[in-house]
Amino acid sequence: MSKWSGRCAACKYLRRKCPQDCVLAPYFPSNDPHRFSAVHKIFGASNIAKMLQQLPEHVRMEAADCMAIEAYCRIEDPVYGCVSFIDQLQQQIIEAQSLTNQINAQIAFYNAHNNQLTIDPFSSSFDQTD
Amino acid sequence: MSKWSGRCAACKYLRRKCPQDCVLAPYFPSNDPHRFSAVHKIFGASNIAKMLQQLPEHVRMEAADCMAIEAYCRIEDPVYGCVSFIDQLQQQIIEAQSLTNQINAQIAFYNAHNNQLTIDPFSSSFDQTD
Repeated sequence: MSKWSGRCAACKYLRRKCPQDCVLAPYFPSNDPHRFSAVHKIFGASNIAKMLQQLPEHVRMEAADCMAIEAYCRIEDPVYGCVSFIDQLQQQIIEAQSLTNQINAQIAFYNAHNNQLTIDPFSSSFDQTD
Repeated sequence: MSKWSGRCAACKYLRRKCPQDCVLAPYFPSNDPHRFSAVHKIFGASNIAKMLQQLPEHVRMEAADCMAIEAYCRIEDPVYGCVSFIDQLQQQIIEAQSLTNQINAQIAFYNAHNNQLTIDPFSSSFDQTD
């Protein structure tokens, strides 16, 4: 077995030996080379390693996953990155709020109309002034 | 005037002379040093310069703004970064959809009830079987 076998995606990409305590190995397995090349392109290998090392081990996989999401987004959309998702979702929420407001206004109208009917169902027939 | 005066935030941070054609200067002015230190910490200066250079000039400011947002988010939340916003917003949309579904169900109930009244307002009085 050569010293190069069993390297993680990061060490394979960086053409270096993968040490037993490689900080990147658990989060960038060799069977997913695109994941590392994406985060490397956006954040840089040393930044990724630094950011992961500063975190407790039990959250490192989630951090690596989120960095990978951000990197994929920025590669796909080099201007807005994943911020475009935030904009789109905020827009959807604004539209949903607007829709909810419209529906609530309709319900209020309905309720007012039904209350009127309950109090005096035929008032409109008698109250017409023209 | 020394050769160091009028440097952009990036060149000031990196302790280098700011060339007239500095690619970072228009997007990282000297009056906002935190903006550059944030993106530098997360993406690295060379990555930022590379990413901006690959874009047409008219979208570089927006790209720098989005990188700054991502960087601030990741500094504040080193595990999820701005992906936490995406999760929160998606959760809000799911809740808004659930609320809209509830309201629509109420409206359908209302409509069915009102139609019944319109067709035969007193049917319930006559149709009672007990």
